[in-house]
Amino acid sequence: LVDGILPRRIAGEPVLLYRQKNGTPAAMFDRCPHRFAPLSRGCIVGDYIRCGYHGLTFDAKGGCIANPLGEGYIPETASVRAFPTEEKFGLVWIWRGDHEKAEPKNIPDLSAFVPGPTAEFKTAYIHVRADYRLAIDNLMDLSHSVFLHAETLAPVTPGLRDAVVRVSRNGERIKATIEMKNIDIGDGERRDQQLDTEWFAPGVVALTFAQVPHGELLGNEAIHALHIITPETERSSHYLFGSTVDGREGMTRDPFVDEDEPMLAACQERMGEEDFWSLRPVILPNDAAAIQVRRQLEKMIRNEQASQSLVASARLLNVINQRSIE
Amino acid sequence: LVDGILPRRIAGEPVLLYRQKNGTPAAMFDRCPHRFAPLSRGCIVGDYIRCGYHGLTFDAKGGCIANPLGEGYIPETASVRAFPTEEKFGLVWIWRGDHEKAEPKNIPDLSAFVPGPTAEFKTAYIHVRADYRLAIDNLMDLSHSVFLHAETLAPVTPGLRDAVVRVSRNGERIKATIEMKNIDIGDGERRDQQLDTEWFAPGVVALTFAQVPHGELLGNEAIHALHIITPETERSSHYLFGSTVDGREGMTRDPFVDEDEPMLAACQERMGEEDFWSLRPVILPNDAAAIQVRRQLEKMIRNEQASQSLVASARLLNVINQRSIE
Amino acid sequence: LVDGILPRRIAGEPVLLYRQKNGTPAAMFDRCPHRFAPLSRGCIVGDYIRCGYHGLTFDAKGGCIANPLGEGYIPETASVRAFPTEEKFGLVWIWRGDHEKAEPKNIPDLSAFVPGPTAEFKTAYIHVRADYRLAIDNLMDLSHSVFLHAETLAPVTPGLRDAVVRVSRNGERIKATIEMKNIDIGDGERRDQQLDTEWFAPGVVALTFAQVPHGELLGNEAIHALHIITPETERSSHYLFGSTVDGREGMTRDPFVDEDEPMLAACQERMGEEDFWSLRPVILPNDAAAIQVRRQLEKMIRNEQASQSLVASARLLNVINQRSIE
Repeated sequence: LVDGILPRRIAGEPVLLYRQKNGTPAAMFDRCPHRFAPLSRGCIVGDYIRCGYHGLTFDAKGGCIANPLGEGYIPETASVRAFPTEEKFGLVWIWRGDHEKAEPKNIPDLSAFVPGPTAEFKTAYIHVRADYRLAIDNLMDLSHSVFLHAETLAPVTPGLRDAVVRVSRNGERIKATIEMKNIDIGDGERRDQQLDTEWFAPGVVALTFAQVPHGELLGNEAIHALHIITPETERSSHYLFGSTVDGREGMTRDPFVDEDEPMLAACQERMGEEDFWSLRPVILPNDAAAIQVRRQLEKMIRNEQASQSLVASARLLNVINQRSIE
Repeated sequence: LVDGILPRRIAGEPVLLYRQKNGTPAAMFDRCPHRFAPLSRGCIVGDYIRCGYHGLTFDAKGGCIANPLGEGYIPETASVRAFPTEEKFGLVWIWRGDHEKAEPKNIPDLSAFVPGPTAEFKTAYIHVRADYRLAIDNLMDLSHSVFLHAETLAPVTPGLRDAVVRVSRNGERIKATIEMKNIDIGDGERRDQQLDTEWFAPGVVALTFAQVPHGELLGNEAIHALHIITPETERSSHYLFGSTVDGREGMTRDPFVDEDEPMLAACQERMGEEDFWSLRPVILPNDAAAIQVRRQLEKMIRNEQASQSLVASARLLNVINQRSIE
Repeated sequence: LVDGILPRRIAGEPVLLYRQKNGTPAAMFDRCPHRFAPLSRGCIVGDYIRCGYHGLTFDAKGGCIANPLGEGYIPETASVRAFPTEEKFGLVWIWRGDHEKAEPKNIPDLSAFVPGPTAEFKTAYIHVRADYRLAIDNLMDLSHSVFLHAETLAPVTPGLRDAVVRVSRNGERIKATIEMKNIDIGDGERRDQQLDTEWFAPGVVALTFAQVPHGELLGNEAIHALHIITPETERSSHYLFGSTVDGREGMTRDPFVDEDEPMLAACQERMGEEDFWSLRPVILPNDAAAIQVRRQLEKMIRNEQASQSLVASARLLNVINQRSIE
C-alpha cells in the first residue's frame, strides 16, 4: 500500500485502502452510499476520499464530511462502513467485524520472521483462482514438490520423496515439519535439511528452509519467507509472497505462477461449487497438517458466528476474516 | 434503421427491425418458430423476412407466407410475434404490448426538439452496461459534470458547482433546470446560462443548453440534443444521442463514452442484482428530478401491469416498455 | 486417441482417455480422489495414470496402485471411477453406466460404412456450441442445405428444394432418404441422386450420397461419411466427421464450421435454458425423421432410467449416454 487508492475485494466485499497524510492506513467499503459508485474511482483529498461521480467526501472513519454541490446538504445517513486497520510487520491488517471487537493483539506475532514490527517488507502479488484454503493446504504439505515442481524446486531437496510430514502445535499455530537427513544433493557432501511451514490464523504461512552439513545442528541459517493469503471470493484469493530480504519475495514466484496456481485453479474447477468435505477427499498421512488447519479454521469460524462478530456477507462466504490481511 | 435487418435485444427479448419496400419499418420477435433460428440471420425478400436455416418466410405482421421446401405445407401455428411500429420524429417506435392497445398518440411530442415529424435525424449509438434508469438518473442531475467531467465538460459551465437543480412538471413530463447567473466563463464577460433536461416517458431526455450575456432573456439560442435510452436487459441499455444538427449527435459522445458509461457500468456492478431502493440510497437535493422520474416510471409500470397490457417477459424485467424506442 | 492423455467432458462429466501399452484404451473420471486435481494434468506411467499433484497412481480400472510419497500408505477408498471401453470401427466406445450392464453388442453395427472393425478411421473434430440433439436434427433434414449452404453445398444437389424427406426404420435405426430424380446438375446430363442419413442410437449418423445417370440403378457408388456426436454439456457437443477414405473426413468440414455450427449455436442461444418441446416448435413435413429420432431417444432414456442403469449426472443432463462415443 503506497500512494493512491488500492481497491481490493476481500471475502466477497469491495474494499478500498489508502494512506492518510500521516501515513496511517485507512480502509472502507468501496461503494458510495449515494449512487453506488465505487469510491476507488474517486480520489484522495488530504485525509479524505472524494467520490468521482458527485463529489461526496468521506473521512477515514467513513463519515461524509462534504457535499460540494449545490447548497451542500449532507443527510444523516450519508456514511460508508469503515474498517479498523493496524499496520504491523510491514502489513496492513483489516478488521471486518464489529468495531468494538477489533483486537490488535489478535494479529499473529510474526516477529520471528521479520526484523521488527516496522521492518520494510517486500511483497510480490499473485491472484489465485482458488479458495484460500486450497492455497493453505498446498503449503502445509510441501511433499507435492516432488511431482508438481519436479523440474524446478524438487532437485534442491532430493530427500523429499521419502520424507514424512510431522505436525506440531503451538496454541492456535500449526506447524508442518519435514526432516531430510544425510542427503546427497549432488556435490558429494552429505547434508541435513529441514522444511517448516507454520500456519498463523487465518491466512499467513511462514516457510523456513534450513540446511547444514550432516550431523551439525540446524539453526539460524534458515531462509524465511511469508505466504500471506486473503480470500477474495469463495473461489479466488489474493496471495502475497513476503520477505525482508531483498529479492527473496520473488524467489518462489515463478514456480508458483507456473505450477502451483494453475494446479490450484484446476482443483478448484473440478470441485465446482461443492464443499471440500462433501466431496469426500481421500486423506493421506501427509495431509495431517493441512487437515488440522482446516479443523482449526472451522472451529474459529463457528466461534465467531456464535459470538455474532461477523458481518452477514462474511457468514455467507463461510470464511474467517477476523484478521483479513493486506 | 437503414438497409438490412437490425437485430436488437429490447427489454430482454430479441427483436429484429427492417424496412419494407415502401419504407415502412417492421419489427418482430427474432426467432423462427420452426427451429428457433434467429430470423436476423436470414434475409429480406421484398417485404418479407426469410429464415436462413430452412427458408420459412414471414410477412411484416409475422404470418408465415411461404415454406419453400418440399411440398410447401405451412402449419397453422407457423407465425412469429410482430410488433406495431410507428416512425415519428426520425425514430422508429415499437409497441411491445397487446396490439389493440398500441396508441401512436402515446409517443411523446418531440416537435420542440426536431424541425418536424419527418425530419432527418442523426444519431450516434452507444451500448451502456447499466440499467436504463441509471442512465436517465445521470441526465436528470447534470451537476455530476463538476466531478465526472472535470476536465472535459465542466470548464464550460463554471457556475455548475454552486447551482441548484429545480424540478418542474408538465403532465407526465419532468424537467430538471439548472440556472447559472452572472457567470465568468473566462473571457471577462458575464453570462447567464441555463441547462434543462426534460424527461419524456419512458426513455427520452431532451437536453437544452442556453447562454446569453448576463441580464438578457434566455431564448431560442438554445442547443438541443436528445438522449434516447432503451432497456436491453436488466443491466444494460441502448443509448442513442440524437440531433437534427449535423455533427451534434456526436458532440457529447466522447465524454459519455470515456466518463459516463464507465461510471454507470461501475455503479451497476456495485449494485449487483440488487434493486435500487433495496440498497437504501442516500438521497441528495439534486436527486429530486431523478427520483420523480423513477416514481413516475414505477407508477406507469404498476398501471400497465394492472391493465394486463404487458407481456410476461416485460413484467419479469420490471421495465416499462410501453413505448420502446429505436 | 493416439499418444498421451485425452481429457474430454462427456455428458457433463470430466473424463480422461489413454491407451495402455498393449494399445487397449482406458477411460476414467478425470479427478483425483485425494485433492481433486484433474488426473489429465498428470502423466502416463506404463499402463497407469499418475496424478501431477501428489503422485497417486491409478491403474486402468481406477484402483490406486501407488502412493509414492512418505511411507506409501494407500487408503482403501483411494480409487477413481473407471469406464468400460471397447474399440470398434476405429472408434473408442465408453460405457458410463453400471459396469455389469456394459454390453459391447449394443455398439451399433457400422460395418456397412467402414471396411472392417479394425479399419483405420480418419476423423476431424469440431466443438459445437449446441445440444447434441440439435446437431442430429440438422443431419436428419438435409433440405436445410438449400438455404444454409446456398453458396457451398446446395449447387451440387439442385433437386433438393423440391424433394421430400422420406423416413424408414430398421429396428432402432431411423433413416431419412431424399430422392432427386432426373436432375440437371449443369452439364446437360440428367442424373438421379439420393441422400441418406441414417441414425444409430445414440449419436452416430451415417451419410450416404449416391449419383448415377438418370434411370440407372443407384448402387455401390455411394460416398459414405460418419457424423459422430457426443454430448459435452447440456448445451454443447463434440462432433467428429469420420471416413475411411483419406481426406474425406475433412470434406464437409468447412461448410459445417462456417455455416452449420454457427447456426446451431444461434438456435441454442435463442432456446436459452428451455427444453425443445416446451418452446412448441412448429413441425414441418421434412422434420419427420428428426422427430422420430427424438422420440426414440426419449424412449431409450426413459427405459434406462426405469432400469436405473444411469449414473446421477447422466440423469441430470437427461441425455442418453449408454454408448457415449469417442
